[in-house]
Amino acid sequence: MDVDDQKSFREASLKMVLEKMKSMSLDACIVTDLAVIRWLTGFSGSSARMLITRTESRVFTDFRYREQAANEVQMAETVITSEGFISELASGRYQLGEVVALQADNITWQEAQSIIEKLEGKQRVIPVHSFFVEFRMIKNGIEFEKMRRAAEISEQVLEQIIPMISPSVTELDIAAEISYLHRKYGAEKDSFDPIVAGGPRSAMPHARSSNRMFVPGELVIVDIGCIYEGYASDQTRTVALGRVSDEARNVYRIVQEAQALGLESARCGMNARELDDLVRRFISGHGYAGEFGHGLGHGVGIEVHEDPRISPKGEHVLKENMVFTIEPGIYLPGKFGVRIEDTVVMGLHGATPFQRFTKELMEL
Amino acid sequence: MDVDDQKSFREASLKMVLEKMKSMSLDACIVTDLAVIRWLTGFSGSSARMLITRTESRVFTDFRYREQAANEVQMAETVITSEGFISELASGRYQLGEVVALQADNITWQEAQSIIEKLEGKQRVIPVHSFFVEFRMIKNGIEFEKMRRAAEISEQVLEQIIPMISPSVTELDIAAEISYLHRKYGAEKDSFDPIVAGGPRSAMPHARSSNRMFVPGELVIVDIGCIYEGYASDQTRTVALGRVSDEARNVYRIVQEAQALGLESARCGMNARELDDLVRRFISGHGYAGEFGHGLGHGVGIEVHEDPRISPKGEHVLKENMVFTIEPGIYLPGKFGVRIEDTVVMGLHGATPFQRFTKELMEL
Repeated sequence: MDVDDQKSFREASLKMVLEKMKSMSLDACIVTDLAVIRWLTGFSGSSARMLITRTESRVFTDFRYREQAANEVQMAETVITSEGFISELASGRYQLGEVVALQADNITWQEAQSIIEKLEGKQRVIPVHSFFVEFRMIKNGIEFEKMRRAAEISEQVLEQIIPMISPSVTELDIAAEISYLHRKYGAEKDSFDPIVAGGPRSAMPHARSSNRMFVPGELVIVDIGCIYEGYASDQTRTVALGRVSDEARNVYRIVQEAQALGLESARCGMNARELDDLVRRFISGHGYAGEFGHGLGHGVGIEVHEDPRISPKGEHVLKENMVFTIEPGIYLPGKFGVRIEDTVVMGLHGATPFQRFTKELMEL
Repeated sequence: MDVDDQKSFREASLKMVLEKMKSMSLDACIVTDLAVIRWLTGFSGSSARMLITRTESRVFTDFRYREQAANEVQMAETVITSEGFISELASGRYQLGEVVALQADNITWQEAQSIIEKLEGKQRVIPVHSFFVEFRMIKNGIEFEKMRRAAEISEQVLEQIIPMISPSVTELDIAAEISYLHRKYGAEKDSFDPIVAGGPRSAMPHARSSNRMFVPGELVIVDIGCIYEGYASDQTRTVALGRVSDEARNVYRIVQEAQALGLESARCGMNARELDDLVRRFISGHGYAGEFGHGLGHGVGIEVHEDPRISPKGEHVLKENMVFTIEPGIYLPGKFGVRIEDTVVMGLHGATPFQRFTKELMEL
């Protein structure tokens, strides 16, 4: 990706943040969410704080990330701290103004209290919630390209590993292949531990892969994603090892139709909750009320789970250039589960999935 | 591992926690740290809260983890919440008493505020810091066995991947092999993304593995670990690809001696800071003051980085059955870095490393 494109994207993002700060009469904002720091500056180290004031932006990290920060950080000066961020903040070297905002949903109670104590009498410290979400939910061209590539890599991996599912291997064997191939095909890493869950384990929506061997006649859920240049992909397919029961085939068909319904129904201007409700009612109408116990989807970007949440509580309105998953499932404890998931880009005329892998029931 | 052993370990842990609560006049404790929940109950789901009162213990999670909780949770009842933990807490179904403690170092400011608001007028909510640390730092036999096995797996992996380092492969190729082999040899997963960093990149203490190919005549740092039955390992070796410069050999020897000094010097009753200081002065005495910019080590357990911190600020006293790393390093920006790391068990008469892999400079 062109470095200048990246920089102008970050410049635009920072400008939006500064305007919001101004409109809320915030003089300074302390960023504790590493995903936001990566979004604004490109810094990908695992220990950092960021200070944004009306006139300057700084990334604070420690010695271990000295070179990485020098290579990565854009739109901010880097400060290597040895005494820690809070001492640095209280040093008087920064113009904090009167009102300092903390990310209340992303800072520990302890750190918030320490900052409040240190700044007492000089600044008023106030909590902000989901401060960057409205900006981060709307993706741009650079971000689409990275996510599209991440999705492509995972689809390549899916094509290779699905034929490997057989009675002579375990879930963990397949999970190991997935992680390996993600990196081999150019991803930084998995975006989450691959979920490979066969038979009754497929009824656990967030099963971890286990040492269990696959058994003919069962369903297998494969839920994978990777990170490419800092952006995540997420995708699920459910496949059959040989011939499965009529009940399993029926549930598969319902989930397949529910997923298609979700894809077709997503519209800009719709509330996330409405989209969830529409698919949920479809599943309930087929007799599986209560067996689809998670949200329909979630935003994807720098984090594999971010806003908007497409769930019964989802309050965001769907907008152009949002990226989120559509992943209905039906889970019958002790028996089996089915989930089908794509990640889509919300366009003006509907949602378009990144993924192309077949959603017809594959019988291996 | 015997299920009853596990259970009696958790029973003893919970008993210690309850005694501490009593001594601090706490009626209830809300646990937000997933590692503590795993330590106390065995539950390994990625979304949970725990409530400990004088008379009952509950784990709260959601539908996705219904089956996993049923299989894993010991020493507590499981509550599947649909409205979320805070509503559940305020439902009046639990005897919270008068004083409720929150893990201030492990709860967001937002969640703490929500809990305080919900319980207002009924309970007094107070912050506690590092509440479980003193118990979790001291490991028992079951934990040693898991960590020993995790270390063995990583050593097997190290033996296989070191000969693969050559001018025709990249750092990410080696990292992919490491993650793959960890799972193949029975680990759940890596305990952190493998660090494979050659040449000038070895001078970045927390480098991520990159697409860079190795070059003859350079040093390569390999820092890896895995999770086995919930417990982590951590180990670093630095190897040479062919013949390296005299300066590199000299720095290697200093780090090797510094690491041996750390291993020999660790004693029960010593302050963590003292051990760090001893090794740090050795490195400074050889002319590399300022080039060892991280702590000497850190505790290892359910988390790959936990207390005690062996650093200039480390305040814990070293005690029998603590497990921590000893990992001095020297980093010369733009040139190269060397780090050597073992994970040790603190015994009454000194520290014993889990690892056996050679620390002599290997020239590949």
